[in-house]
Amino acid sequence: MQIGVIGLGRMGANIVRRLMHYGHECVVFNRTPDKVRQLEGEGATAATSLNEFVHLLTKPRVVWAMVPAGDATEQTVTDLAQHLEPSDIIIDGGNSYYKDDVRRAKLLNEKGINYIDVGTSGGVWGLERGYCLMIGGKAEVVSCLDPIFKSLAPGTGDIPKTPGRENLRSTAEIGYLHCGAYGAGHFVKMVHNGIEYALMQAYAEGFDIFRNANSQELAEDYRYDLNVADISEVWRRGSVVGSWLLDLTAMALAENPTLSNYSGYVQDSGEGRWTIMAAIEEAVPTDVLSAALYTRFRSRQEHTFAEKMLSAMRYKFGGHVEQHS
Amino acid sequence: MQIGVIGLGRMGANIVRRLMHYGHECVVFNRTPDKVRQLEGEGATAATSLNEFVHLLTKPRVVWAMVPAGDATEQTVTDLAQHLEPSDIIIDGGNSYYKDDVRRAKLLNEKGINYIDVGTSGGVWGLERGYCLMIGGKAEVVSCLDPIFKSLAPGTGDIPKTPGRENLRSTAEIGYLHCGAYGAGHFVKMVHNGIEYALMQAYAEGFDIFRNANSQELAEDYRYDLNVADISEVWRRGSVVGSWLLDLTAMALAENPTLSNYSGYVQDSGEGRWTIMAAIEEAVPTDVLSAALYTRFRSRQEHTFAEKMLSAMRYKFGGHVEQHS
Amino acid sequence: MQIGVIGLGRMGANIVRRLMHYGHECVVFNRTPDKVRQLEGEGATAATSLNEFVHLLTKPRVVWAMVPAGDATEQTVTDLAQHLEPSDIIIDGGNSYYKDDVRRAKLLNEKGINYIDVGTSGGVWGLERGYCLMIGGKAEVVSCLDPIFKSLAPGTGDIPKTPGRENLRSTAEIGYLHCGAYGAGHFVKMVHNGIEYALMQAYAEGFDIFRNANSQELAEDYRYDLNVADISEVWRRGSVVGSWLLDLTAMALAENPTLSNYSGYVQDSGEGRWTIMAAIEEAVPTDVLSAALYTRFRSRQEHTFAEKMLSAMRYKFGGHVEQHS
Amino acid sequence: MQIGVIGLGRMGANIVRRLMHYGHECVVFNRTPDKVRQLEGEGATAATSLNEFVHLLTKPRVVWAMVPAGDATEQTVTDLAQHLEPSDIIIDGGNSYYKDDVRRAKLLNEKGINYIDVGTSGGVWGLERGYCLMIGGKAEVVSCLDPIFKSLAPGTGDIPKTPGRENLRSTAEIGYLHCGAYGAGHFVKMVHNGIEYALMQAYAEGFDIFRNANSQELAEDYRYDLNVADISEVWRRGSVVGSWLLDLTAMALAENPTLSNYSGYVQDSGEGRWTIMAAIEEAVPTDVLSAALYTRFRSRQEHTFAEKMLSAMRYKFGGHVEQHS
Repeated sequence: MQIGVIGLGRMGANIVRRLMHYGHECVVFNRTPDKVRQLEGEGATAATSLNEFVHLLTKPRVVWAMVPAGDATEQTVTDLAQHLEPSDIIIDGGNSYYKDDVRRAKLLNEKGINYIDVGTSGGVWGLERGYCLMIGGKAEVVSCLDPIFKSLAPGTGDIPKTPGRENLRSTAEIGYLHCGAYGAGHFVKMVHNGIEYALMQAYAEGFDIFRNANSQELAEDYRYDLNVADISEVWRRGSVVGSWLLDLTAMALAENPTLSNYSGYVQDSGEGRWTIMAAIEEAVPTDVLSAALYTRFRSRQEHTFAEKMLSAMRYKFGGHVEQHS
Repeated sequence: MQIGVIGLGRMGANIVRRLMHYGHECVVFNRTPDKVRQLEGEGATAATSLNEFVHLLTKPRVVWAMVPAGDATEQTVTDLAQHLEPSDIIIDGGNSYYKDDVRRAKLLNEKGINYIDVGTSGGVWGLERGYCLMIGGKAEVVSCLDPIFKSLAPGTGDIPKTPGRENLRSTAEIGYLHCGAYGAGHFVKMVHNGIEYALMQAYAEGFDIFRNANSQELAEDYRYDLNVADISEVWRRGSVVGSWLLDLTAMALAENPTLSNYSGYVQDSGEGRWTIMAAIEEAVPTDVLSAALYTRFRSRQEHTFAEKMLSAMRYKFGGHVEQHS
Repeated sequence: MQIGVIGLGRMGANIVRRLMHYGHECVVFNRTPDKVRQLEGEGATAATSLNEFVHLLTKPRVVWAMVPAGDATEQTVTDLAQHLEPSDIIIDGGNSYYKDDVRRAKLLNEKGINYIDVGTSGGVWGLERGYCLMIGGKAEVVSCLDPIFKSLAPGTGDIPKTPGRENLRSTAEIGYLHCGAYGAGHFVKMVHNGIEYALMQAYAEGFDIFRNANSQELAEDYRYDLNVADISEVWRRGSVVGSWLLDLTAMALAENPTLSNYSGYVQDSGEGRWTIMAAIEEAVPTDVLSAALYTRFRSRQEHTFAEKMLSAMRYKFGGHVEQHS
Repeated sequence: MQIGVIGLGRMGANIVRRLMHYGHECVVFNRTPDKVRQLEGEGATAATSLNEFVHLLTKPRVVWAMVPAGDATEQTVTDLAQHLEPSDIIIDGGNSYYKDDVRRAKLLNEKGINYIDVGTSGGVWGLERGYCLMIGGKAEVVSCLDPIFKSLAPGTGDIPKTPGRENLRSTAEIGYLHCGAYGAGHFVKMVHNGIEYALMQAYAEGFDIFRNANSQELAEDYRYDLNVADISEVWRRGSVVGSWLLDLTAMALAENPTLSNYSGYVQDSGEGRWTIMAAIEEAVPTDVLSAALYTRFRSRQEHTFAEKMLSAMRYKFGGHVEQHS
């Protein structure tokens, strides 16, 4: 089917490529025109203005917006709303806050425009592996878009069927899912990322123990000089902790077991933060999800004010002057 | 090759089966004789006493002990040591504390007996999938046992080769690894389990947010009645959080999305605890590994004394009397 | 000076009493009239309706609202706004969310009505000890209210002057502080409560270790049957951990060292939650503040869904069936 | 009474001074002789060798060892044991691990020498305020030392009696406590320090929120430029979070509200670590105590290996290259 894609960053461009690969007709637009031209060269229909973009689309129009969450998405949706007509569909495929989805969907509904929120997982691997899609919005609109979702999703692949699902039917088994009403797609994707942070942190802490297992401070009998690359590799087979993140870890450690090529300065995006806020609103204890987020906050500072305050208190009660060793 | 296996619980018995399947000759012994008889029926050579067990083995003898960590392993190794001779090999395949390995290995070495510690991951699935083996001890002894390890390990399977390992050679790629000196196998397995707890906790907290996303305390616009079974299923394809633990979660949720058949009373074994102790000895921050362990401690109590103390303080400063709602 | 107080719960009534004790004229109103009558008997001027309440006050009117945060405060402020006139002052002395303060203050300002937010600490002890007041709003309005704040605050008392403050002048030394613009009072009080939770949790965890120090699972040589009441008492003198919360703990433990009279079912109010949300917006790691909050969430449940999921995963990979011991 | 003090660091020297102030006769010895001479100048009897030290003491000898925990204490106790006779008493006033106490006490008991462990809180303030003493060992030996403990402890001071203790009699009310058998004193002091870390961390995180409350990333309406010195001061009166640590915080912030004179590089001593190990042995969840310890571990590193691994995984799945902003 025909679809317009606005926002041609890495994720947006790859989504266009995967859709074209599966025979869909893509009309593309981007703030900076070079990316438009590149995809035109790969077979997409190029638009040089939002106006042209909208006119190139057949009614009811389907527009996939793939722009950064926050102001950029807000602006894009607002601009689109001025050009679109009743029955048209805006899909926000970015990482929006689910409460923004609810607000936007309501505003658009007043104009008869449909809104769908899609949480998209898969990163740079999605072009080839397919994207795991978590979808929110009205069921009848979602089902209109089924050809799109089916093409973007990974499909069954060679992943074995889950025992117990013999009598359950769901698109979940081919990699996309209508999760619920407006915002539900981004809500599920949000928690997905919250979990992702904690999974990453679990491996990271464990390997930090390995990395320091040869410390001079330990008793000599209990020191180990471990090969972290081999450990990550052996766990890929038959162990309980096998995962895709472990596969990636094994790649990174195979290249450089000291990881000296990485800064350790770790960003976080909105989803990790919103996950904790949602948990707090529900009174759900989320100890590891929070700890994983805080580790990232900490990683970006040389010293926190909190640490200076600890130094100050120690000095005041004990005369301990903290110094770099 | 010939191997004696002592301790025929679920893990021990399956190890015998897998070894026999790959053509090894197994001599088996167990405190309770019915398990011995069952494996005899499947082709093993049965011993009715430790003495007989030892005499049925060809020198240099190889004995795999698969008994519960702690007192049982201590007793088994001590008993074996009295029967074995120089150049014999004791393999502790259980979940021993690595400091105990070091101590035992030293004692046995004085008698010329070799000691190998093997951390074994794979649970009830290992018979079929193979076991991921993490091995500690002297390199020359480990290499003698290569046929055993190769049979127990999963092999390459259909797991894709890690990019970057083209020029690295390691048995890690077939599922077993000599990690280092005495205790190194159990040290690596210990941290493996510490990580496992935290991975489990990450998923558990995320799904708890889903489960409570429809709470009456939330504003009506932001409530979602989510299908947790489908969410776990959709994440199995193309998402960043795919893992074997997620596969298992999907099974459990497919059977019963409320998990009402599970108690929520969660045991922990020694490894999770020792992981934190090792981290503390190394001064490595392990926020999520610890939080995952504490959640299990908490799950086994109705109310902690700590919570009663919070109630007491609240009452004393504010007259808040805490009650069940 | 004259002040109207609306909301005569425990906190509101005690504030009236303390103000009257220091010679202020209090006009009082409450949804349920019996509390009005009681304070009338103690010297307050009683109002039987909001209308009468407003008319009994001299312009520019000063109204202290002391009602539960959330809907009740919202309603009270809205109702008052309809009766008050330019230059009148509404003080929200409850535990409002600081973002609500900002919103309300703006709305009231459009009508020329002044708004002050006051975080009030002191609980049931405040009547006698005085209340620690954290104040937000316009400086000139705050200074009009100085006689009120001075009377409610504890004053210098016998607390020694902080070395280093010799040349600093601040009302902080007599127990109240203008913290900043709208919402600043409640912001500071919010974090105060966040800290309070974590201080409480610190003692609670420590005493939980004492309480379990005699566990049969410990090696006999390292078991201690400790007198927790005496420990809390001895720490009140000369130790680093002395505090008012410890004083309260010592009281509770002196009465009943097992605390069996307390449920361990621990409520949390909004401030603890908002503290974490504010920290996350600022990207400040708040590990202990979060952990303290989550402990309370957990204390109110028999088992979390997260724990059931841990049980389920354990069962699926290892055949562990979790049971109550 | 007469007492020998060995180890004249800041703590040891002040203990000598306080004891002499209360009329006790102190024989002193130290590895480096200048400290011995200084205290001799203040009235102590100086010993120039361990041998002389022991001979200057009247039988049964009482020796207070105040040397760093670990090897130094081990050596001191071992050396003393060779010089002392049955019925003599060794007091370990340092920060020893309680399991070491148990071991040492048993060895000394075989020679008839008594062993007492004393956890000593008070830091540089103890000389003037008195020391809070937590004592382990045999009751009859502890009671012999009562004059010493009474002089070192703060006494009742002007701290109000705890309601509910009217009928309880305990030396706890004058600042020292016989906690239990060997090691109990250091066990209680250990947990005291564990709590101390978490109390400090609670304030530190809260003030970190204040310090960042004016961040440009926050919406303009919700930014506050807070006076952290004044906030710490106002909380000293009537608030729930008043404590001695807050008093010290107020001092530090009065001197320099940015704390730029402190490094934020925070040491930890053994007690904080052992507290977590003890909690884990008891299966007591200690979320905030652990988090407080980990913060210190983290404060001493530029970047953890864990953080580099997070960067690596992020790069591998999403092409995120982490950089310093």
